[in-house]
Amino acid sequence: MPCALYYPMREFIVVGHKAVTDGQFSLNDLPGSAGRMDIMCRCINSALFLSHDLRRDVVVYLVLLGEPQPPKIVKFIGQDVRYLNPDERSSGSLIKKALELTARARWRESTSGVWVRQGDLEGLLSELNSSAAKGDDNRLYYLREDGTDIRDVIKEEMPQPSTFILGDHVGMTPDEEQKIMDAGARTLNVGPVSLHADHCIIVVNNELDRNNERKGCD
Amino acid sequence: MPCALYYPMREFIVVGHKAVTDGQFSLNDLPGSAGRMDIMCRCINSALFLSHDLRRDVVVYLVLLGEPQPPKIVKFIGQDVRYLNPDERSSGSLIKKALELTARARWRESTSGVWVRQGDLEGLLSELNSSAAKGDDNRLYYLREDGTDIRDVIKEEMPQPSTFILGDHVGMTPDEEQKIMDAGARTLNVGPVSLHADHCIIVVNNELDRNNERKGCD
Repeated sequence: MPCALYYPMREFIVVGHKAVTDGQFSLNDLPGSAGRMDIMCRCINSALFLSHDLRRDVVVYLVLLGEPQPPKIVKFIGQDVRYLNPDERSSGSLIKKALELTARARWRESTSGVWVRQGDLEGLLSELNSSAAKGDDNRLYYLREDGTDIRDVIKEEMPQPSTFILGDHVGMTPDEEQKIMDAGARTLNVGPVSLHADHCIIVVNNELDRNNERKGCD
Repeated sequence: MPCALYYPMREFIVVGHKAVTDGQFSLNDLPGSAGRMDIMCRCINSALFLSHDLRRDVVVYLVLLGEPQPPKIVKFIGQDVRYLNPDERSSGSLIKKALELTARARWRESTSGVWVRQGDLEGLLSELNSSAAKGDDNRLYYLREDGTDIRDVIKEEMPQPSTFILGDHVGMTPDEEQKIMDAGARTLNVGPVSLHADHCIIVVNNELDRNNERKGCD
């Protein structure tokens, strides 16, 4: 069986505390009027792009908590996504299209591989844990500066389906942290200095790539 | 002596083969009319940003080879740079301001920490080697997929001043590769899958951060 067939899924959850929740924002002002949507855009790039391909085994959830209709979740599925280029405006444009749809409690697809629904972090974690309870051995990791070094964890625990949770520029609230830990997450860090969420995602992907190679999945 | 005082300098050279060389481009179309300037912008972000600070020990050289006035080099000095935010438009705006100056053979500062001059890759490498010959033990590394794994090199050879050379989406020409190797570069790779230049820079920074910590410089 080619290794790609049993590549474990990688999921990233990024919480945008100020990121707007309708499609009225300007692509010319992602940091300002869109509530630091630029961070979300870079996280999409970091999670999904290879040099001349997309990471088909990656799913990204953006939990958007800004006005006017919070909370919403926008999901990018690497296997299906189309029309995505590496620049911030490109992912911004797909997020905008998703937010132009009326979000409901169930996922709706806005463009190929991009989905939107109403929902918050707690509900998403519960959904993922519920999926794990059905036999999918998904592990939950919360990226935090005082977490365990990913290199001390990765060899024993991965590869297997893993979900990594990251905050934006304002970090998680104590309440969010509590929900994350209640969901069974383990804290991880990716190095000795504090990095932006999108940079952390690059490092996580690199560690998982290397680990897949060690396991013979290159 | 605080470790920061003897942190070795990190330099990144990125070659933008299509990146335009005047300041007429639109910040709304960095990938298109600006000749994939978005790649250069993301490399600035990757090289210079920490979570709530800039990397003061990093210098980035963008070698721009697009029309209408190639070649030019734009330099960002982490220690001095101001007005830089993480989004692509922000670094794009500083590059644009640099390219609006008339470039000469000598460096000119356009905004704090951002400099521009006429010049190509070969001249830049020669300048860096000449500086190294004066006693600065700078090492030159060329990021290429078939290079030696950075993790096999870093412990012995770093920390010390290091310069990392990266191509853009079209890669280096054979002629450029020859000049890089003639300048004494060693080829390095950062993992088992091929990554964008800006992603490679993140991984290099992470490896150097970890190595500094191992050497007691955290």
